[in-house]
Amino acid sequence: MIAALPLPAPLSTERVPVRLRRAEIGDLESLSQLLADDVISAGRGDRAAEGDLVVYGSAMLDVIGDPGNELIVAVDASGVIVGTFQLTRIPGLSRRGSTRLQIEAVRVSSAFRSSGIGSAMMRWVIDVAAPAAGASLVQLTSDSARPEAHRFYERLGFTASHLGFKLPVLGV
Amino acid sequence: MIAALPLPAPLSTERVPVRLRRAEIGDLESLSQLLADDVISAGRGDRAAEGDLVVYGSAMLDVIGDPGNELIVAVDASGVIVGTFQLTRIPGLSRRGSTRLQIEAVRVSSAFRSSGIGSAMMRWVIDVAAPAAGASLVQLTSDSARPEAHRFYERLGFTASHLGFKLPVLGV
Repeated sequence: MIAALPLPAPLSTERVPVRLRRAEIGDLESLSQLLADDVISAGRGDRAAEGDLVVYGSAMLDVIGDPGNELIVAVDASGVIVGTFQLTRIPGLSRRGSTRLQIEAVRVSSAFRSSGIGSAMMRWVIDVAAPAAGASLVQLTSDSARPEAHRFYERLGFTASHLGFKLPVLGV
Repeated sequence: MIAALPLPAPLSTERVPVRLRRAEIGDLESLSQLLADDVISAGRGDRAAEGDLVVYGSAMLDVIGDPGNELIVAVDASGVIVGTFQLTRIPGLSRRGSTRLQIEAVRVSSAFRSSGIGSAMMRWVIDVAAPAAGASLVQLTSDSARPEAHRFYERLGFTASHLGFKLPVLGV
């Protein structure tokens, strides 16, 4: 939990009233289904298999208990989870001692895509969460296979100035 | 400090005997000079100006005091700092509950470049730090203006599968 973040928070979306709140362990099954509701994630092993709930649950407790990480869900008026993302606060020396706020695992339920929820979530990160966390840079990586996501982040003001390198480590 | 990392640690480099250790606040001036010893960083404001030591010092205390971050220096046999990098442990739900180890702010002193220090630092991250931190993925972003760095990371086994998006936040 990043204590400085002002949550819960209402989101301004054009069509669907949505509220952001901290994820709770009771959200585990909904979150694992939301991750699987995405072709690229499913290809990396996120398939909401029942036997996987143990590893997701253990990871979720790790995220929730970490003072530098925040797992957030967007819920509609009836409490259904329609989106999620994770924030990581990264203090650092470079860029004159800039603290960064990193965004990971942005997902919107397929039934609610193109409704402005993703955009409203990211605007909240830029306009509210970053200043609250003392961050002067917001950053994320997006898979090269997601050209629509790239246009989405560019519309929000992000610049694709970097390449994102990943290396799976075996044997863990 | 990421308590699980086995530091200090000797590094195997071909030509220069080097040791990794946790950065201490007494390293502040050397680190600010090392950041400035790089054209792209200097262009972002890291110029080792004397008046900037306060902001670097404050950022350094923030990094050192954070249980999810580790600022590491590589020192030669006489104790001179010849390299640095920062690690951030990021637990998460995606990729079946994978913990990531993120690398930021990799720098090698210009007098020691092409001596194998950078490569030895990154091999230590992949082979030692990631398993120790329980991470199954190592990740970083590299400025598009650094083609030599991109070849360096690819030689180490990284894949440039993502684009890295950044957005400076004003008013912080």
